[in-house]
Amino acid sequence: MQHQPRDPSFEARVRASFVRQRFMATLGAELLAVRPGEVTIGFAFHEALTQQHGFLHAGAVTAVVDSACGYAALSLMEAGSGVLAVEFKVNLLAPAIGERFEAVGRVVRSARTITVCAGELIAVAGERRTVVAVMQGTMMAVKGREGIAD
Amino acid sequence: MQHQPRDPSFEARVRASFVRQRFMATLGAELLAVRPGEVTIGFAFHEALTQQHGFLHAGAVTAVVDSACGYAALSLMEAGSGVLAVEFKVNLLAPAIGERFEAVGRVVRSARTITVCAGELIAVAGERRTVVAVMQGTMMAVKGREGIAD
Amino acid sequence: MQHQPRDPSFEARVRASFVRQRFMATLGAELLAVRPGEVTIGFAFHEALTQQHGFLHAGAVTAVVDSACGYAALSLMEAGSGVLAVEFKVNLLAPAIGERFEAVGRVVRSARTITVCAGELIAVAGERRTVVAVMQGTMMAVKGREGIAD
Amino acid sequence: MQHQPRDPSFEARVRASFVRQRFMATLGAELLAVRPGEVTIGFAFHEALTQQHGFLHAGAVTAVVDSACGYAALSLMEAGSGVLAVEFKVNLLAPAIGERFEAVGRVVRSARTITVCAGELIAVAGERRTVVAVMQGTMMAVKGREGIAD
Repeated sequence: MQHQPRDPSFEARVRASFVRQRFMATLGAELLAVRPGEVTIGFAFHEALTQQHGFLHAGAVTAVVDSACGYAALSLMEAGSGVLAVEFKVNLLAPAIGERFEAVGRVVRSARTITVCAGELIAVAGERRTVVAVMQGTMMAVKGREGIAD
Repeated sequence: MQHQPRDPSFEARVRASFVRQRFMATLGAELLAVRPGEVTIGFAFHEALTQQHGFLHAGAVTAVVDSACGYAALSLMEAGSGVLAVEFKVNLLAPAIGERFEAVGRVVRSARTITVCAGELIAVAGERRTVVAVMQGTMMAVKGREGIAD
Repeated sequence: MQHQPRDPSFEARVRASFVRQRFMATLGAELLAVRPGEVTIGFAFHEALTQQHGFLHAGAVTAVVDSACGYAALSLMEAGSGVLAVEFKVNLLAPAIGERFEAVGRVVRSARTITVCAGELIAVAGERRTVVAVMQGTMMAVKGREGIAD
Repeated sequence: MQHQPRDPSFEARVRASFVRQRFMATLGAELLAVRPGEVTIGFAFHEALTQQHGFLHAGAVTAVVDSACGYAALSLMEAGSGVLAVEFKVNLLAPAIGERFEAVGRVVRSARTITVCAGELIAVAGERRTVVAVMQGTMMAVKGREGIAD
């Protein structure tokens, strides 16, 4: 789907906001691509992110896919809007094992207040790429609330 | 609801498994209470866990509530079962701001394979306790799969 | 939780809107109780509502719990607002078998635009009452959009 | 994605099971296509299916998308398995208005017990086709439980 950004400087806004997400730095995640309505975030496997069986913790999976979805939504919002997650749902398809991971968030429908997104986490091991989780979630544009920008 | 554990040493199993969740240590989270079908995890606010507006990142929220729900499910499973999250859905009710947080996971229904849980995250600031997120999720008991214990 | 209605004539608005939901009549459902932030809808088992194993179809389950949640949300909205479901998630806990069913929708958090609800479907067979499904969903207040009242 | 059916007579099983879903007849729904891992169901708009604003009720939306997803899952299950919905989550993207509707269910990942599906509801009005709802859900294969076949 082709999306038209409402704010031509959407990429700069997304990149500046991402840097302020301290939790992404904690996870070692970085922004790989920002397109209108689609954002990709990458990070390497690290033991500090694991659950009891040695897989990536579902919360770490969710964190990065949620950020990718939130920024995909923000990329289509008007200047001056902040983005907040209303809710999301994650299905874990396979153990999240890999050398590195890519989270992709895509806008499914963008309305004035509510944006619906689809996200996925891809585990990368050598040449092999496996979708290990999918997200369906709702983001909200917030305007004029103090402290909620981008 | 009163739940009957299938394994009398459920608390020891949950506690041993929690220690192996390296991501919980990364978040600074600790196990506060383990009861049959109900687990509480606590952690302090830290800037390393924030999103762009300074609130707790929704992924950090999810991580701890998911662990609380997963261990609530495990507390009622037979010895020899491992627990895996199938899926969860999180609604964010209010900005996750506080001095510390408590995640509570409770079993809604425990069947042989599938356990349905309800979770919440409580933000604590002085005397004030606010539920800032709720989870509804599905956990699965896994038996006889190598590497999936507790 | 005690909720304060913003509109004193909330019950009349909910009852008038319910009558306009033609699908509730198709299902044989009727409004049993309207309280601030909590609505109960009842209906009898009927073969016309079943799936392939003779249980109540998950879509019929969802329809009635969604209406209960939507009207619980509407009961706390300002006069002039219409209610629309943004999303919902349903876990099916047990086969929906019974003589009759009660769907309860409760408001978890009511903000100006977004209301989060929890719902459940109770199967009634003689004296026995079993929760067979739970819902966690999001409702939205819509104002000033033509055709969207109550 | 190309899926390989485990049972060569998958289409006959799906069609026979669909006929037993009395609720589909109540909604006026019919099976349009059965492919390995993908099922399409169609139905016409009818006032008996509406909510208070005259749109298709979200429960009717869910019913048909859930059946499409359930049968997409069943199309890949072994002979002798019955399919049950564990849970689903639906986002409503736009008012469900149209002359007729098509629900498509697709398998995202099929494992022995758990199948994850993605579904959508398309509203058709003249030449115009609009996706008005999306579903992400979990189906379960049930074996050897009396009364649960196909």
